[in-house]
Amino acid sequence: MAVFQLAVCQLNVAENKRKNIDRAAEMVRCAADNGARMVILPEMFNCPYQTKLFPEYAEHFAGGETTSMLREVASEKQIYLVGGSIPEKDGDQVYNSSFTFGPQGELLGSYRKMHLFDVDLPGGPKVQESSTLDYGHGLTVFDTEWCRVGIVICFDVRFPELIRLLALQGVQLVVIPAAFNTTSGPAHWEMTMRTRAVDNQVYVAAASPARDPETGYVVYGHSVVVEPWGEVVAEAGEGEETITAEIDIDRVEKVRQQIPLLNLRRHDLYDLQWKK
Amino acid sequence: MAVFQLAVCQLNVAENKRKNIDRAAEMVRCAADNGARMVILPEMFNCPYQTKLFPEYAEHFAGGETTSMLREVASEKQIYLVGGSIPEKDGDQVYNSSFTFGPQGELLGSYRKMHLFDVDLPGGPKVQESSTLDYGHGLTVFDTEWCRVGIVICFDVRFPELIRLLALQGVQLVVIPAAFNTTSGPAHWEMTMRTRAVDNQVYVAAASPARDPETGYVVYGHSVVVEPWGEVVAEAGEGEETITAEIDIDRVEKVRQQIPLLNLRRHDLYDLQWKK
Repeated sequence: MAVFQLAVCQLNVAENKRKNIDRAAEMVRCAADNGARMVILPEMFNCPYQTKLFPEYAEHFAGGETTSMLREVASEKQIYLVGGSIPEKDGDQVYNSSFTFGPQGELLGSYRKMHLFDVDLPGGPKVQESSTLDYGHGLTVFDTEWCRVGIVICFDVRFPELIRLLALQGVQLVVIPAAFNTTSGPAHWEMTMRTRAVDNQVYVAAASPARDPETGYVVYGHSVVVEPWGEVVAEAGEGEETITAEIDIDRVEKVRQQIPLLNLRRHDLYDLQWKK
Repeated sequence: MAVFQLAVCQLNVAENKRKNIDRAAEMVRCAADNGARMVILPEMFNCPYQTKLFPEYAEHFAGGETTSMLREVASEKQIYLVGGSIPEKDGDQVYNSSFTFGPQGELLGSYRKMHLFDVDLPGGPKVQESSTLDYGHGLTVFDTEWCRVGIVICFDVRFPELIRLLALQGVQLVVIPAAFNTTSGPAHWEMTMRTRAVDNQVYVAAASPARDPETGYVVYGHSVVVEPWGEVVAEAGEGEETITAEIDIDRVEKVRQQIPLLNLRRHDLYDLQWKK
């Protein structure tokens, strides 16, 4: 039976990198001690969501203090740890990157956000991630003992092509570290997560930082786990908390038998290709 | 200013083709007299939604009694009339087809449902459209004086590729004659319509028949019009009624400026192609 407990840690992100790393480690350890076999952190969990801070908080993958913590805690607790995302330095470039470590502390996946968030929201924030971040170019898929997992980050989820490409590669659980805001969140967050789950008949787990009304970019919170029929199986409020959900991968096949969406695609008429 | 009034007629479909045609004509005339410049009928508005009845109710496009009514009423009221869908006979084949006529009674678009509904819903109906229907093979897009319109039918909407392809062809309003049921409707109807609108930053107008609890396949109702930010601008209940919405095509451009989703697609990385 392919069942396991997943936890999403909706942590408060402060303007102190070390403090964020320590708090994340603490929440992940606690979730693991409570039975979670996979733990997910939010987008930019070690850095406040402000584009100008990304280069300042950025670290190299090799020997970075955040990546070191992730590897260490995954191995210590023998869990799958999706390290939300962090600003990653690579030469002169800075990426919004997600690193996942397995139960032996091995790197399972590294993903760089592919769609950068350049928007001017009505009555909401104007953000230009591309002013300080560079674009990722690769899909990230990895296997666990229960299922195949795909990673995307926040704004990526608005592009149905990307989630579909993951599903076509056999992904059964899409993990989405994200930081929607209080304009886009109420309007689109839960609906988008649920529709991606329903369209692709996969589990979706979306991890947001906790809301801090004092910051310039106020995140929405409401981390959520959705099953393949689109039902919300766990949802956070606005504050710091950990939510857990039982992931039953057999649900994926069951829903796909009821409505065989992936089989009924008209690939004789249209074609969605990953070009790399 | 590209503003016009759109009406969706959520009519009761009876087991009497002539009665359905007459009732549809009556509702469309009434909507036009009340100011609607575009009127939309539901999926299978002249035939109860039962796969075995489709061949029996089917007619040829040329000289068919339903298509004749549609042409006549569109011309008489000088409106755009999206004739929901009807079973269409063409040689030995039967299609689930949608015909749209313009203000001079000219045929503007004809669409044959591309994704047939072959499902076995949990606690809901088992349906196999492909047992009596044939598959359509073409996209349908047409222009009006206000905007470009694309047509898909019901189950087609579950395939995000199709709606995206229409948006990439410049469609600003997607019209969806549909007949979700009381299992899939509460679970997915509104959410799917809204997410298609949000992902593609288009208007979506979905037209359902009214609910009749006496039939084998109980439709959901809840015809709905959604604007490009995902807000529901008009929604029906379960019974027979006409809903109207003001369509302001400038909204499409405005929302696309706020979040330029179509421009931010990574077409360097993935490619969605219509193959015909």
